[in-house]
Amino acid sequence: MRESTALLTDKYELTMLQASLRDGTAHRRCAFEVFGRRLPNERRYGVVAGTARVIDALARFRFTEEQLSTLDFLDGATLDYLRDYRFGGDVDGYREGELYFPASPILTVRGTFAECVILETLILSILNADSAVASAAARMVTAADGRPIIEMGSRRTQEQAAVTAARAAYLAGFDATSNLEAAKAYGIPASGTAAHSWTLLHTGADGTPDEAAAFRAQVEALGVDTTLLVDTYDITAGVATAIEVAGPELGAVRIDSGDLGVLARQVRRQLDGLGAHNTRIVVSSDLDEFAIAALRAEPVDAYGVGTTVVTGSGAPTAGLVYKLVEVDGVPVAKRSRDKRSHGGAKAAVRACRRSGTAVEEVAYPLGAEPPEVGTLEATPLTVPMIRGGEPVAGLPDLEASREHLAAALVTLPWEGLALSRDEPVLSVRFDRV
Amino acid sequence: MRESTALLTDKYELTMLQASLRDGTAHRRCAFEVFGRRLPNERRYGVVAGTARVIDALARFRFTEEQLSTLDFLDGATLDYLRDYRFGGDVDGYREGELYFPASPILTVRGTFAECVILETLILSILNADSAVASAAARMVTAADGRPIIEMGSRRTQEQAAVTAARAAYLAGFDATSNLEAAKAYGIPASGTAAHSWTLLHTGADGTPDEAAAFRAQVEALGVDTTLLVDTYDITAGVATAIEVAGPELGAVRIDSGDLGVLARQVRRQLDGLGAHNTRIVVSSDLDEFAIAALRAEPVDAYGVGTTVVTGSGAPTAGLVYKLVEVDGVPVAKRSRDKRSHGGAKAAVRACRRSGTAVEEVAYPLGAEPPEVGTLEATPLTVPMIRGGEPVAGLPDLEASREHLAAALVTLPWEGLALSRDEPVLSVRFDRV
Repeated sequence: MRESTALLTDKYELTMLQASLRDGTAHRRCAFEVFGRRLPNERRYGVVAGTARVIDALARFRFTEEQLSTLDFLDGATLDYLRDYRFGGDVDGYREGELYFPASPILTVRGTFAECVILETLILSILNADSAVASAAARMVTAADGRPIIEMGSRRTQEQAAVTAARAAYLAGFDATSNLEAAKAYGIPASGTAAHSWTLLHTGADGTPDEAAAFRAQVEALGVDTTLLVDTYDITAGVATAIEVAGPELGAVRIDSGDLGVLARQVRRQLDGLGAHNTRIVVSSDLDEFAIAALRAEPVDAYGVGTTVVTGSGAPTAGLVYKLVEVDGVPVAKRSRDKRSHGGAKAAVRACRRSGTAVEEVAYPLGAEPPEVGTLEATPLTVPMIRGGEPVAGLPDLEASREHLAAALVTLPWEGLALSRDEPVLSVRFDRV
Repeated sequence: MRESTALLTDKYELTMLQASLRDGTAHRRCAFEVFGRRLPNERRYGVVAGTARVIDALARFRFTEEQLSTLDFLDGATLDYLRDYRFGGDVDGYREGELYFPASPILTVRGTFAECVILETLILSILNADSAVASAAARMVTAADGRPIIEMGSRRTQEQAAVTAARAAYLAGFDATSNLEAAKAYGIPASGTAAHSWTLLHTGADGTPDEAAAFRAQVEALGVDTTLLVDTYDITAGVATAIEVAGPELGAVRIDSGDLGVLARQVRRQLDGLGAHNTRIVVSSDLDEFAIAALRAEPVDAYGVGTTVVTGSGAPTAGLVYKLVEVDGVPVAKRSRDKRSHGGAKAAVRACRRSGTAVEEVAYPLGAEPPEVGTLEATPLTVPMIRGGEPVAGLPDLEASREHLAAALVTLPWEGLALSRDEPVLSVRFDRV
C-alpha cells in the first residue's frame, strides 16, 4: 500500500466514532455533503478541484498498527473498528473541473455514520486547497487571454502543497509548472528559465559582473531556444548582451522586476531593432489576475506566476464545509444563528439556454427525477464516483478535467468572467429539498 | 532512507546546474542567504519557523534512480552529479523560534554553487510556509493573553500542509492541535470536541432532534470532562441540556457561531446559575488575532482557531527569498530596479538594553568579529546548524524552540506586540557589509 492517509484527520472524528460505536448510532445510514456557503472575495464562480485526489486518498485511508498504537485515547472496540476500516460507501458529486456556486452540492458521501464521519478532514483539506488554487488560476487564465502562463510558486507554499498546487493550476489552464515532483506525479509539462544567482555566479575575482559569460554558458548548455533573464543589472544592456551572445534566434528573455508594461514595450522595440523578431518576452514578478489583465495590450508573450496562484490570490482556502445532511433517509440541518444549511442528499443540474449560456443551478433530491427547467436544457452536474467503496470505471483524468473546465467557462454569462467583485454569476435553486 | 525530497525542486535549478557543470562554475564556493525584504501586512515582527524541518529535509535530498529517469532534459554528466549528490556544505542561521525583521540574514547556506543552488525551492517552501503560520500564530497567542488556543484548521489547508501548520502554530505558543498526524509526528498534544454532525446524527425517524441523546452518548464515551457543542439548535436550550445530562462538573461547552462575546457572557451566566462554575467556555468560528483580542474581556476560557492560523491570517506566505550573496569570497548583489540586496555572507546580533529590551539588529560579515554596540548587550542570533553536510550536535527541539520564542517576544519594545499595522519594531543595520 502507498502511504496511509488515515491520520490526516482531526481527533474529534475518532472520538465521535467511539461515542457512536458505544451508543449504536455508528451504523446509521448517513449522507454528508461538501459545499461552500459563499465564494471568497466576492468572486463570480468557483472551480471544483481535487476530486481525483480525494478518490485516491480514500483508497489509502487505512490504519496501520503503528498509527493505531498512537491513538491511546480510544477504547479497544474503536481501535478494532479502525483496524478493519475500509470505506464501503458511495460518493457522488461534481466532476473535477466543474464550476460551482454557493450551496452547490459539490460532493455527497453516503455510508454509515462511522465510515463517513472520519473522512471529513481529509476530504475537505484536499478540496479546499485544490479548489482555492484552481479558482484563482482560472481567473488568471482568463486574464491572460490565450497567452501561456507558467506556474512557478513552489517556493511560496509548503513543499507538498506546492506539488498539488501545480496540479490545480494546470487543471485551471496553466500551461506548465516549475515543480519537478508535479511533473513526475501528474505528467504536467515542466518549465523554467534561470535565476539571478546564475548571472551573479559569473562575477570576476575583482567583483566585475560578466553577464555575457552567464548567457553564453546557458545557451551552450540549453540551446538557443532558452530564456535568458535580462534584469540582473541593466535591462537594456542585458537585452543587448543576450542577443549578442545568442543571436536573433534566442528563444526568449525574461523580465522579473520593474514596470513590466513599460519594460516589455521597451524590450520589444529593442529586440525588433536587433532583428530578434521571434524572441519572446516572458514577464514575472508578483503577477496576479489583475496585473496580468493590465498587461493585455503589452507585447508580452508569456507570464510566470508564483506566489499569487499557489496562495489562491487572496483566498488561500475555498472555505468548503462537510455537513451531515441526512440520517436514515431523514433530512437534517443545523439551526445555529448564522450558519444554516439545507438538509437531504442532493444532486444538481445546470439549466442552460439553447445557446449554451448557463442560467442557474437546480439542486434536487439525489436519486429523484431531475427537475423541470421549462424551455431550458438541464445539464447533469452530479455523477457517481465511488460505489461500494470502489471508484467507478471511466473517471476523467487530469487532461479531461482541464478540458471540461475550459468548456464550462464558455457557458458562463459574460459578466461571470469579469475580475471585479460582485455576486456569484449563477445561483442555486432548491427543488424538493 | 525515508522519502526523498529531491524533486521538490524547480526545473531551472537543475538546468542551471547543468550549465554550471559545463562551464566549470559549478564548483565555485558560494553563499546563499534566506531573508525577507519586508514583513507581510505591515506586521511588527516575523517568527522564523521550519528550520528543523529544513535540516531534516536536506538529509533526505537524494535522487533515486526512478526520479533520475524522469529528468530527461538533463545530460549524462548532470545526472551523474545528481546520482551522487549529498549536501556537503555549511548552514548557519537564526534558530527556530527566533524573531526576524526585514533583511535579517535568517539562513546562510555555503558550499559549491552546484550543491547550494538546487536547494532553493525546498528550503524556501519550508521556511515560507512555516514562518507564515508561526508569525500569524504568535500574534494570536499574544492576543489570547494566556488563555489556551487550539489549532483546528487542518480542513482549510492542503492535507500535508495541515500537519506542518499544526507544528508551526504549536511552536508559536498554541496549546494543542486537532491534527492526529501532527500529534504523532511532532509530539504535539491533540485535542478536540465534537462536530454538529454528532448532534444531528441523533435525530429521530420523524425528524425530531435529540440533543440530549447526543450529549449523553458523548459523556458516556468520553467522560464528564468532555466539551459539548451547544449551538446546533438553540444555545440556551443546548446549555441547559448539557448540564442536565452531564451535571455541573461538565468540562466545557463550545460555541461555534453567532456573536461570541454576547453569547459567552450569556452562557457564563447560565452555567453559573446552574451551578456549573467550573465548566469552561470554548469559542470558535472564524477567529483571528483581532477577534481573539476583542474577546479579551469576555468570559472565554479557550479559543479554537482554524482557517486564519493555517492560512497565515492574510499572509499565507512569509515571502522569504534565497539569494546568492557571495562567490569565491566576493560579495555579489543584483541591481534590478526594485529589488536590491546586500552582498556577502552575514551573521547578526541583536543589541539589547541591560533591561533586556531589544533595540536593533546588526548584520556583519559571517566569521568576522561581532560589531561594537556601545553600552548595549549583543545577543548572537546566528548559530551553526550544519557543518560539512552533517547537522551539528545539540540543535534545539520543538519544545526548546517554543520556549525560545516565548522568551524572545518578551524582549520586544511594547509596540512590537501591538496588532495594528506599522513599521517593523526593529531594523537591521549593516556593519562592514
